[in-house]
Amino acid sequence: MIKPRTPPGVLELLPADQIAFQRMLDTIRRNFERFGFLPVETPVMELSEVLLTKTGGETERQVYFVQSTGALEKAAQGEGGPPELALRFDLTVPLARYVAEHEHELAFPFRRYQMQRVYRGERQQRGRFREFYQCDIDVIGKDALSTRFDAELPAVIHAVFSELDIGAFTIQLNNRKLMRGFFQAQGVAEPALQALVLREVDKLDKRGEDYVRQTLAGEGFGLSADAVARILDFVKVRSTSHADALARLDALAGDNQALREGAAELREVLELVRALGVPESAYALNFSIARGLDYYTGTVYETTLNDYPQIGSICSGGRYDDLASHYTKSKLPGVGISIGLTRLFWQLREAGLVGAAESTVQAMVALMDEGSLPDALEIARRLRAAGINTEVQMEPRKLGKQFQYAARAGIRFVVLAGEDERARGVVAVKDLAREEQFELAREELAGALKVELEQARALPKR
Amino acid sequence: MIKPRTPPGVLELLPADQIAFQRMLDTIRRNFERFGFLPVETPVMELSEVLLTKTGGETERQVYFVQSTGALEKAAQGEGGPPELALRFDLTVPLARYVAEHEHELAFPFRRYQMQRVYRGERQQRGRFREFYQCDIDVIGKDALSTRFDAELPAVIHAVFSELDIGAFTIQLNNRKLMRGFFQAQGVAEPALQALVLREVDKLDKRGEDYVRQTLAGEGFGLSADAVARILDFVKVRSTSHADALARLDALAGDNQALREGAAELREVLELVRALGVPESAYALNFSIARGLDYYTGTVYETTLNDYPQIGSICSGGRYDDLASHYTKSKLPGVGISIGLTRLFWQLREAGLVGAAESTVQAMVALMDEGSLPDALEIARRLRAAGINTEVQMEPRKLGKQFQYAARAGIRFVVLAGEDERARGVVAVKDLAREEQFELAREELAGALKVELEQARALPKR
Repeated sequence: MIKPRTPPGVLELLPADQIAFQRMLDTIRRNFERFGFLPVETPVMELSEVLLTKTGGETERQVYFVQSTGALEKAAQGEGGPPELALRFDLTVPLARYVAEHEHELAFPFRRYQMQRVYRGERQQRGRFREFYQCDIDVIGKDALSTRFDAELPAVIHAVFSELDIGAFTIQLNNRKLMRGFFQAQGVAEPALQALVLREVDKLDKRGEDYVRQTLAGEGFGLSADAVARILDFVKVRSTSHADALARLDALAGDNQALREGAAELREVLELVRALGVPESAYALNFSIARGLDYYTGTVYETTLNDYPQIGSICSGGRYDDLASHYTKSKLPGVGISIGLTRLFWQLREAGLVGAAESTVQAMVALMDEGSLPDALEIARRLRAAGINTEVQMEPRKLGKQFQYAARAGIRFVVLAGEDERARGVVAVKDLAREEQFELAREELAGALKVELEQARALPKR
Repeated sequence: MIKPRTPPGVLELLPADQIAFQRMLDTIRRNFERFGFLPVETPVMELSEVLLTKTGGETERQVYFVQSTGALEKAAQGEGGPPELALRFDLTVPLARYVAEHEHELAFPFRRYQMQRVYRGERQQRGRFREFYQCDIDVIGKDALSTRFDAELPAVIHAVFSELDIGAFTIQLNNRKLMRGFFQAQGVAEPALQALVLREVDKLDKRGEDYVRQTLAGEGFGLSADAVARILDFVKVRSTSHADALARLDALAGDNQALREGAAELREVLELVRALGVPESAYALNFSIARGLDYYTGTVYETTLNDYPQIGSICSGGRYDDLASHYTKSKLPGVGISIGLTRLFWQLREAGLVGAAESTVQAMVALMDEGSLPDALEIARRLRAAGINTEVQMEPRKLGKQFQYAARAGIRFVVLAGEDERARGVVAVKDLAREEQFELAREELAGALKVELEQARALPKR
């Protein structure tokens, strides 16, 4: 007897949670499609040679390699090379490979969404996953891509998280050019040095301002007290309204070209985000946001839940200059965001924010006695034909047990047709959500339940 | 520069095909849920020890093993054991592990659906996939499961393939007990011998009846001419109607107990399949269907497209006695079916049966000039708020180019608002499906397009 268990680092759900998770996936997909993004799926396995062009060091240590039994046997005999296949660790490298491979079959700007699982050999730790869903959208241009596309992504993020209904959130915006220009103006010109300064600045919350001030003014960095003060003021900028955000950009002094370019891009993005109907409470400038320093080159995004800052960013991304330089000579600039849904779902559940989902099953036809099975099946057939998800009790049990089952499973309607009801051409319906029971003519059953279910869908969830 | 390419044996689709594939997945899921099945997803990676209890020999050779970089390095130094992780090769073993692991948290009969990819190290060959979708449903009982559940699956299959709209199909039914009893009555009592006889019978189409007759009557088998004749008559049985199916069962002579049991089960299944509203043209008895001889124990199913028999079975399954004997002492009988969607999609596309899908994008707002972008974004905002999937041209291009783009992408509506239209408070709409252009008041746009799209959805596809 083998103990049935999953490997560590995966999130496997019972059906009720799986339904809640699936509803989140569906909501995200619906909104991605609402904004005109097209679906792409790529294989879980990529050729190692193709997947691992960019990575090295620590990232490479997290890769899962794949070998068939045959390849494994060869390897054991010292034959064959390193594993030919590896599991994708994100959706960006597969996107780069996809776009480069199908470059001549795609229309640019290419707007794609992709919602699939990725794999990382993470250290074993609570809340860290080795298999998790990423839900990504990217717009890829050929040769060039207008900054305007940077403004669409916050509108998508706003639509997604509004409908996910997990509380107030803020989409935080920054721009890597603006940061670069600002740090240049403070005498921190080297990108590597900027990265080190930002790493210190990241410790503001944990170590406090004094510590960071001393470090930046100390031997290692040797920045002037003025420069340090300006840096600390800069990274603390959080705009409080649309007008305030524009004013913050206007207030940035200096004629550094990168700074001016970055500020102009942010201004354009802010104006178009507003034109797209995103309420100003949902977005803000945050000059401390840097994201991957060696990857993003313009707008960068992070999204946080206002009431759950400890969860961190629930949706991040930004603008990059060239998606697929390892695979094609074409220049493919892009902008994208990613939602790590498995981690988000886990955190929301830990915080008690994932409610008990209604079942996907909407009605259950109870079975009164052996003889009424064909009749129960006929009732179910009509309900299903009307688009109502219906389960039939295939074996008679005590009615109490059947109701208990439906209640536990989160099924809203229990339909009964005993001898008496059959004789009168009616069915009895128990609405477990409203705790009421009523009778309906058989022909009216499906239509009536459909109306009830559509009304429930139209109501606000809270 | 690395050549961008996928590993052999995977099916990666361009967006138009991906949309068609996704629509098939959605249709299957909708119908699985319609019949009250609950969603489950399991990790792609399982512990090798857990996954490979049952398998051996050829199956094991097809397994993909997974190792992190660290584990791989250890293995290279002769440390560590065999790979701890492997990719699932079907959804049945993970279901067994899942049900046994969560036995006390699930309600039985447990009705689950699962639609995920599985992995097999298949020989490289056109039309053979190493990564492919399986779409499975199973009902698992605890201790016992009524034959009645065997009747639900044909109703689900009928609903799925009717809505997939890929042509007429027949759900073919047989029963392993009936087969066993029949062969016992012909003097072929040993299960292993029955399997060998069935393997010969399988060659009927390719080698012809004479060849099979000679083989079965020949030295290896040594069956009497009478027995061979009865066997050949038996495996050629195909019922032509519901009444004919019942008559075929009545005609089975003999008092072999397994035969009688199997015939009674098939009779019950046929009657309930009819009660569930499946038209009799969609199902038939086929006594040649055996499926996995060491696994299935009662009802077995295969489904074929009437006009494309060469595609083979597009949905198969059956009844089994015990799902998870390797993981739990509980007896868990079940019945299930599986659709291999990747292969089916590929075959339908090869046969020209996958039409050009409409895009997920339903409307495109054209951009007339730089200044009208905020207005275009506002039009898009309203369309999206009404539930219409909308893309905006973010940069002005020649109108002809914009129309060409929409036509190629399969987008139905192009919305234009030039200076003239703006002055008059209207928008121009070009319906690329009907090839007509009309004007609408701005406030009426979203409502009018929504009605058009809903009408198109309600129309039959062919």
